[in-house]
Amino acid sequence: GDMIEIGSYIMERLVQLGCTKMFGVPGDFNLGFLDYIEDHPLIDWVGSCNELNAAYAADGYARVNDGSIGALTTTFGVGELSAINGIAGAFSEHVPVLHIVGVPSTSQQKNKPMLHHTLGDGRYDAYFKAAQQFTIAQASIDSKETAGAVIDRVLTECVVMARPVYLMLPTDLVSERIPAKRLKTPLNRTPPENDPDVEAFVLDEIVKLVEEAQGDAVILIDACAIRHSVKEEVKELFKRTGFPVYSAPMGKTAVDETEDRYGGIYVGSISHPDIKEKVESANLIISVGALKSDFNTGNFTYHIPIGRTIELHSDHTRVQFAGFPGIGMKRLLPKLTSRLHPFKEGAIKLDVPKFGLSVPQDNSDVITHEYFWPRVGEFFRPKDVIVAETGTSSFGILDVKLPSGAVFVSQILWGSIGWTVGSTLGAAMAAKERGLGRTILFIGDGSMQLTVQELSVMMHHNLKPIIFLLNNSGYTIERYIHGMKRKYNDITNWKWTHLLNTLGGEEGKTCQSYTVNNRDELSRLLDDATFASTGKIQLVEVMMPQEDAPRALKVQTELTGKSNRYAVTQWT
Amino acid sequence: GDMIEIGSYIMERLVQLGCTKMFGVPGDFNLGFLDYIEDHPLIDWVGSCNELNAAYAADGYARVNDGSIGALTTTFGVGELSAINGIAGAFSEHVPVLHIVGVPSTSQQKNKPMLHHTLGDGRYDAYFKAAQQFTIAQASIDSKETAGAVIDRVLTECVVMARPVYLMLPTDLVSERIPAKRLKTPLNRTPPENDPDVEAFVLDEIVKLVEEAQGDAVILIDACAIRHSVKEEVKELFKRTGFPVYSAPMGKTAVDETEDRYGGIYVGSISHPDIKEKVESANLIISVGALKSDFNTGNFTYHIPIGRTIELHSDHTRVQFAGFPGIGMKRLLPKLTSRLHPFKEGAIKLDVPKFGLSVPQDNSDVITHEYFWPRVGEFFRPKDVIVAETGTSSFGILDVKLPSGAVFVSQILWGSIGWTVGSTLGAAMAAKERGLGRTILFIGDGSMQLTVQELSVMMHHNLKPIIFLLNNSGYTIERYIHGMKRKYNDITNWKWTHLLNTLGGEEGKTCQSYTVNNRDELSRLLDDATFASTGKIQLVEVMMPQEDAPRALKVQTELTGKSNRYAVTQWT
Ligand SMILES: Cc1ncc(C[n+]2csc(CCOP(=O)(O)OP(=O)(O)O)c2C)c(N)n1
Ligand SMILES: Cc1ncc(C[n+]2csc(CCOP(=O)(O)OP(=O)(O)O)c2C)c(N)n1
Ligand SMILES: [Mg+2]
Ligand SMILES: [Mg+2]
Repeated sequence: GDMIEIGSYIMERLVQLGCTKMFGVPGDFNLGFLDYIEDHPLIDWVGSCNELNAAYAADGYARVNDGSIGALTTTFGVGELSAINGIAGAFSEHVPVLHIVGVPSTSQQKNKPMLHHTLGDGRYDAYFKAAQQFTIAQASIDSKETAGAVIDRVLTECVVMARPVYLMLPTDLVSERIPAKRLKTPLNRTPPENDPDVEAFVLDEIVKLVEEAQGDAVILIDACAIRHSVKEEVKELFKRTGFPVYSAPMGKTAVDETEDRYGGIYVGSISHPDIKEKVESANLIISVGALKSDFNTGNFTYHIPIGRTIELHSDHTRVQFAGFPGIGMKRLLPKLTSRLHPFKEGAIKLDVPKFGLSVPQDNSDVITHEYFWPRVGEFFRPKDVIVAETGTSSFGILDVKLPSGAVFVSQILWGSIGWTVGSTLGAAMAAKERGLGRTILFIGDGSMQLTVQELSVMMHHNLKPIIFLLNNSGYTIERYIHGMKRKYNDITNWKWTHLLNTLGGEEGKTCQSYTVNNRDELSRLLDDATFASTGKIQLVEVMMPQEDAPRALKVQTELTGKSNRYAVTQWT
Repeated sequence: GDMIEIGSYIMERLVQLGCTKMFGVPGDFNLGFLDYIEDHPLIDWVGSCNELNAAYAADGYARVNDGSIGALTTTFGVGELSAINGIAGAFSEHVPVLHIVGVPSTSQQKNKPMLHHTLGDGRYDAYFKAAQQFTIAQASIDSKETAGAVIDRVLTECVVMARPVYLMLPTDLVSERIPAKRLKTPLNRTPPENDPDVEAFVLDEIVKLVEEAQGDAVILIDACAIRHSVKEEVKELFKRTGFPVYSAPMGKTAVDETEDRYGGIYVGSISHPDIKEKVESANLIISVGALKSDFNTGNFTYHIPIGRTIELHSDHTRVQFAGFPGIGMKRLLPKLTSRLHPFKEGAIKLDVPKFGLSVPQDNSDVITHEYFWPRVGEFFRPKDVIVAETGTSSFGILDVKLPSGAVFVSQILWGSIGWTVGSTLGAAMAAKERGLGRTILFIGDGSMQLTVQELSVMMHHNLKPIIFLLNNSGYTIERYIHGMKRKYNDITNWKWTHLLNTLGGEEGKTCQSYTVNNRDELSRLLDDATFASTGKIQLVEVMMPQEDAPRALKVQTELTGKSNRYAVTQWT
């Protein structure tokens, strides 16, 4: 028809953007809107156990559902504030998430009665103000006249900027009818054009530098290459130029790790020595989508002078010391590829280290990190979605070469533990939509305790991830930072293999749990074809020594000084 | 000694305030501080599974540890934002909670490196700005010169205003030494004096009104009487004047419910008819510590004209239409009692309804709300701490007359579900310190799913609450509001009786779980002396019909209009 209800309008826009899941938790200020979600033929409602988990799920969904967005709905005050850490994480890590909050009616917002979920002092704008800190755009739908434009504006910001946005939806407007005409024009999803003169200048500058470098350039790819959708453009770049390509931790799998010209993970001083040498000795580094956080740079130990660096970003470019605001990489990269293509002949001769570890052959029976990561590396398959939680897992996985088409999901800048449980839920849903492979989560015992209930939602939706639960009796990563023997780094040991069954599964039927105590048990499980085929959701409790850690974490701790010199060295 | 480390200084102030538990979750920006907590002989570290639960626990602890405060520690960004909904709830409901956030060092705060847990854009003040919305005072300790004064200031605000405060503690200052001298002066915990002239005027005005009312006055006590510590003063008032006293839902147990002059819960139109009649027909209402939120007033249905009302608050007084800022009840009440004492002879003749329900004697076997609440009412003992979650529980418990010395804990204004699991943890700890009785929680199956992991922390600390888990297959309270048959109001059914054992207990040894399917099973369990003696933590799954609800909830729903007229009637 000509007219459409606001609730439906939002649904249609989501479908157009390729977003078909709505995460969230009901509350009396969003129930009316939930009707539209439940009734929509192409959108699935995914009710989470709590709002933080829902935000994490929307984030994980957005990461894997490349080019689209994630969406969640919560209720006024109590719901939205529960989700805010998840939203802030999406902001920090450049993930496009739409947060729709069901809020009191427009007349209540004017009269400000002391409703439940208010602060009791009439400040109806307090949550909005908090949300402003963690979203790239905010709006309250406050009339049916402007509703369509408001919705379109925040959605556009969300997609183009790859950051979360906040939208208040008052109870009395959900079912108001507005013209449907706008829906005929799809939302703009691409960044604005670069200024042609500046762009031309920048291209010339870069080409000059590559010439001066005698073609000895390497590409370093990072998080924002994934989030701002230039993976294909970068692939073209290194394929057609032959430049070696390395990845920062947050850029892992932005480049297929089986590519010939791929050399592995560069992370400053904690890189493998051959990678470190190759990257830092190159005459020129072309950095794409860098996010230079402490954990993503080996604690700020890039030994690459700015004079040898070109930085491409979503909204600006830097050539050595010169900044070019507004020159975005999405449109620059294809042109750069054409211009740099002629260097291929020389570049192809540049040596690329062989990335990846082999399983150690010592006689120990203990599942150490040194053994674990290469061993599970052999278990991965092309197109697997691999999620690693902050902790020993996010460090351990870095050295593993992932198969072709694999997608790596981690939260290295924000680093909120428990995030992977929610994000695995979202990632597994997106993986299905995208025809990807298995979803495999690595998570510590400590982290699982923050958000464990979301396992139940996975089962509710018949998802079948494999969950490796690293049981090392507490917060090992924190022990390495400070307080190795401290009680505050201990946790209660749960009966991990009972979890799935308790939270709604039927052990042996819809879920399966295992404990592996030694290398042999682990190996046999990994070699088991039934296990590998993930016919049901599976949880593997991996028994590991309390004070063991992956190489990268140990080196990082050494770098940052003796852990007991706490106050002084605190990660810088 | 003369000097004391900042970490220890904070500990000493907490001990002085009677706060002996520190809730929270470790993170690398607070680990140094945690050493001081773990090492302090009088303060216990209570590591929660996640930060929201820790905030809830600190809130529950503060409520039961009357006159003191609750405290929690989280880490920069990820930790503090996870807790923010719990802090906002404490703000809304007037609960004094100290939130200490471990933050980057003072030099990092100046240089703003892209540390993990930052937003990646250098905005180091974003979390502070968010916290400003939900706390009554905020500060960053930024030098050892000012540290003592800053700490004292926020702690004083916390206690005196009975609201949460926010304190940033940088890693490099935790172990700095400051003069210990300030500690010899205890913090001020009382509100300021009232202006004597104004106070005298107010007292005269009130006495005049009581005279005009011919002594036909009733007292209505509410939340802030508890939070601003005037329970004793109010007791004096009704004991020495003989005025009937009623309570709003949020004021339940502010007056001992076994008192002769206590008439029960007044909640506007959803009050029991005799209570409603008695309160609304009184010539004068003396309201103490009112917090007139929707659920606390039967959706704003007080039928009491302002012309017949005197309102006493922590920081102001209202006599009919006249406001008297700065005239606080703590100091006014004793004087009022002396002045009103002469009215006793008349007042004592005023009739007070008998409060409390009896167990229905019909032949049904089904555990309906109508049966359940009076029946568990018989199970309560003096001094029990009774916690009720938002949902059918918080409505159902209102009609139950609680025994002498019982403490009722609920979150009727903020209403964040899952809150009771954390707050039960804190409440149970405070109950021990205060020599109170058992801690008993009533919670819905939906609410438990938000924060379930905290059961494990209860067991870790050997707490033994009884948990009544009302299994009615989903969000029943929401069904009553909108979407009775909607899928979004369903939840996954867990194996509730496996929970405690899975989360670290040993079924039969350290924990015990039960399912009661009918009245007989429930009754037998309640009559079992071993059960009642709470030798271990116990969880009772109570099977209830999906669409059953307590009287008060049904009436409230009827009042607010047919549930399908969603947008229009939305609770006003
Ligand atoms: C929400 C949140 N709270 C606290 C922290 C601080 N923190 C970082 S890692 C970690 C411990 C993780 O322990 P676990 O998951 O067991 O990992 P592992 O033992 O393998 O290192 C903690 C508490 C955080 N990053 N995020
Ligand atoms: C954090 C938060 N999220 C969502 C809500 C909205 N809400 C209020 S009550 C409720 C359902 C509670 O269900 P349950 O605990 O099972 O209670 P019952 O079925 O007994 O009513 C929900 C989802 C809320 N109040 N707080
Ligand atoms: Mg661990
Ligand atoms: Mg329920």
